[in-house]
Amino acid sequence: MQDNNYSLSLINDEKHLIPKHDDKAKINDFLSKHEDKKVVVVQGLGFVGAVMTLICANALTEEYAVIGVDLADKNNYWKIASINNGVFPVVASDPKIEDFYQKTQSKGNLLATHDSYAYSVADVIIVDINLDVLKNSDFSKTLIDYDVNLKPFEKGIETIGNNCKEDVLILVETTVPPGTCEKVAYPLIKKCLVNRHLITDKFKLGHSYERVMPGPNYIDSIQNFYRVYSGIDENSALSVEKFLRTIISTEKYPLTQLANTNATEMAKVLENSYRAMNIAFMVEWSRFAELADVNLYEVVSAIKMRPTHSNMMLPGIGVGGYCLTKDPLLASWAKQNLFNSKLPLKQSEKSVQINDKMPLFAFNYLKETYKENLIGKKVLLLGVSYRSDISDTRYTPVEPFYDYLTSEGAKIYLHDPYVDLWEEKGIKVSSDLDQLLDEYIDILVFCTNHSEYINNESLIKDISINKNSFIFDTVGVLNENEINILKENHTLKVVGRGDL
Amino acid sequence: MQDNNYSLSLINDEKHLIPKHDDKAKINDFLSKHEDKKVVVVQGLGFVGAVMTLICANALTEEYAVIGVDLADKNNYWKIASINNGVFPVVASDPKIEDFYQKTQSKGNLLATHDSYAYSVADVIIVDINLDVLKNSDFSKTLIDYDVNLKPFEKGIETIGNNCKEDVLILVETTVPPGTCEKVAYPLIKKCLVNRHLITDKFKLGHSYERVMPGPNYIDSIQNFYRVYSGIDENSALSVEKFLRTIISTEKYPLTQLANTNATEMAKVLENSYRAMNIAFMVEWSRFAELADVNLYEVVSAIKMRPTHSNMMLPGIGVGGYCLTKDPLLASWAKQNLFNSKLPLKQSEKSVQINDKMPLFAFNYLKETYKENLIGKKVLLLGVSYRSDISDTRYTPVEPFYDYLTSEGAKIYLHDPYVDLWEEKGIKVSSDLDQLLDEYIDILVFCTNHSEYINNESLIKDISINKNSFIFDTVGVLNENEINILKENHTLKVVGRGDL
Repeated sequence: MQDNNYSLSLINDEKHLIPKHDDKAKINDFLSKHEDKKVVVVQGLGFVGAVMTLICANALTEEYAVIGVDLADKNNYWKIASINNGVFPVVASDPKIEDFYQKTQSKGNLLATHDSYAYSVADVIIVDINLDVLKNSDFSKTLIDYDVNLKPFEKGIETIGNNCKEDVLILVETTVPPGTCEKVAYPLIKKCLVNRHLITDKFKLGHSYERVMPGPNYIDSIQNFYRVYSGIDENSALSVEKFLRTIISTEKYPLTQLANTNATEMAKVLENSYRAMNIAFMVEWSRFAELADVNLYEVVSAIKMRPTHSNMMLPGIGVGGYCLTKDPLLASWAKQNLFNSKLPLKQSEKSVQINDKMPLFAFNYLKETYKENLIGKKVLLLGVSYRSDISDTRYTPVEPFYDYLTSEGAKIYLHDPYVDLWEEKGIKVSSDLDQLLDEYIDILVFCTNHSEYINNESLIKDISINKNSFIFDTVGVLNENEINILKENHTLKVVGRGDL
Repeated sequence: MQDNNYSLSLINDEKHLIPKHDDKAKINDFLSKHEDKKVVVVQGLGFVGAVMTLICANALTEEYAVIGVDLADKNNYWKIASINNGVFPVVASDPKIEDFYQKTQSKGNLLATHDSYAYSVADVIIVDINLDVLKNSDFSKTLIDYDVNLKPFEKGIETIGNNCKEDVLILVETTVPPGTCEKVAYPLIKKCLVNRHLITDKFKLGHSYERVMPGPNYIDSIQNFYRVYSGIDENSALSVEKFLRTIISTEKYPLTQLANTNATEMAKVLENSYRAMNIAFMVEWSRFAELADVNLYEVVSAIKMRPTHSNMMLPGIGVGGYCLTKDPLLASWAKQNLFNSKLPLKQSEKSVQINDKMPLFAFNYLKETYKENLIGKKVLLLGVSYRSDISDTRYTPVEPFYDYLTSEGAKIYLHDPYVDLWEEKGIKVSSDLDQLLDEYIDILVFCTNHSEYINNESLIKDISINKNSFIFDTVGVLNENEINILKENHTLKVVGRGDL
């Protein structure tokens, strides 16, 4: 297919011809303008890597020459071309993103490339490529089994090992199965250096994960936030610390060194497993609350006044995003495969299983209450992204919910103020709420608690003009007053609540 | 047995003859001295009820005449006698307890009695009796099944209904299965009033649970803390609110009204289930950390810097106390038995099952590492109570741990600065650490993280004089420096950590 010669931008419709040639001249030209600067290379230009290039190119206490590297293929090359052509490849509500990008443009200290030659000029290499879990689930999202494919990650590390300087600092930011730096990355880099007849005791390898929150505080969630770090040895740890101090506000957000890379790797997946489990825990309490005519939102907000209980989660349509849907499995896989345990992390695995099935629960709850046939029914979904006020739709729980509705023959309309194209589905999403509400809608579902939906008087007014719709709030967007207005003319159902 | 005529005090060795007569004269005499005051009766003089009598007798904005009621039996009468004889029946490190008690003594506004006649003179009755779960577990603490026996609670409510004024306010503070006020207490009181030919629409019934923390902030955890409340109807809710405002600092700690009694009852067991589940969650991560040579305490404290993760728990020897060990089961029982659901609260039940088995995990971990036969070995347990700096030993995880050691033939020495008599075991506990450490000890186990054990230089010095002991820290009491000192001459093991 001819199309494979091009990479289509996901943020505008530009097509970029994928280059076959190397990028050596361009890289050397770039470096000649920054001879006095240390070179930081970021491997992977996704949601984290792209923003990391900005953070490093606008480091707090040092001026770096920054090179972002990704693959010259259909899915990724457009990010490289975009960065070099004046368009940042991540759309976010955080104005600092554009601000930081413009600064790098005027300083000229950010280059993107597909050429592994970049690794050979790097003083610091930050690894921000994905490490995925392959989930095998059926249509009802019952997790049958899963596997972790280390190969792409290993290939990324190998490319570094085959090109890097012998005294480079390699900082892994990727969420990896605990044990990966020590048991996978370290020996691999060593092997590569041996093959290249280089000294193997000079490179530094560390792990420090970001706690990025795509959304209005995107940049701050990296630059102004706590971080833990570790090194494969004390020298590595020192180098990591020194580097992080140049890019993060460590006076306000002190760094925490952990004893080894296993510890930081575990910390990351434990953080996300904790979150996933706390959500899963609320699932069965939602069912209980519905049964006992209890408003679980009210109960949870009363409980959260206790500092010891402030992390309690709320009911919802499901769990999405790149992390919480897989990290507990990464951890469990590591325990069994990198540490030879016969026992999985059962509770953490169970959390993922429960969360994966939440959209089906929500759908069944809708069907049970709606009682009518869904064929041809007009259903408006408000919110497509997996969390409030972000554009990220990866593993959004709205996807299986959408699939269930579609399989029953419903006609679906989509609204999201942050999503133009639902990438995974290849569907356009409207941001024109007024126009959508002009249509007579049979079922209206709040799927994401975007700020735009909360305390929105005109939205409630527009909805209440229609009559006899079924309004289904899966995320507790509606307040008591709005519920009272809407229930005059509509049937209302809220996940985690009894009769209204 | 002659002994059944007496009730033995648990806080001193005094024996009290159990009375056969009524207490009417005494109550009337007491009331005659407080004619202008409203009468508050507290039913149940346990860890909560006894302290509630003090809170009410020292109410913030009103002067009450307070009567505490308990049963005239072997286990309970000593509390009544104590209160009336100048000895408060709860020992706690909170100096406010004694202070409050002395104030009531000088005001003369607190009486204790066994006579149900007290209910007939009450304007407010606070229910603080236990509602227990009967767990059927084997020696390994595997929970086979469980049941909730509502009978004693129903009997308590019935006694109130058979004696109370028709416009009384009954405030249930007991942790009950959600649904109990509505489906059990309310109809029962109504029935009693009907039988007594009284009007049934004037009594007020509400639910509001305390969040008491026995220990140094005992009084404050009731008087100066957030509370939720509800009423069986709006009038009841109003009465509850009005009453709570007189005893709690509601300006600083605002009250939260929930929509119905199911909601507050659910809030209480949800709070404790959340806690139990967060502890259970850490169990398998402790095993993983041990395997991966990770210091889980260090990891958790790094993670807890995130406000979204501040409620993460630490590894330990197990879960004890009256609440976390049973409340998830109360909830699950209610869902099935009061709301006819076929599905239990599986995750919440599972949490209890996992937590119940923690002491066995700890014991097996010790045995695996210690490798020697335990017969005749001298084992010193530091800490008997279920939590730091309290004297409460109810359902302490140290109990099964103690039993496992005993069954293997170990000779056990006990230390606890807060416990003189381990009530459930009928064993005396020493508070003389120096004397215990003079003995040659084979195995020393930190079971509770009492302040006395933390950063205690002389304790570490005394321990290190012995050589070749096995030191087992189940609760992360030892810091890195102490570990380094001790491991010179001893074998060390810490739950949730790898090799030291």
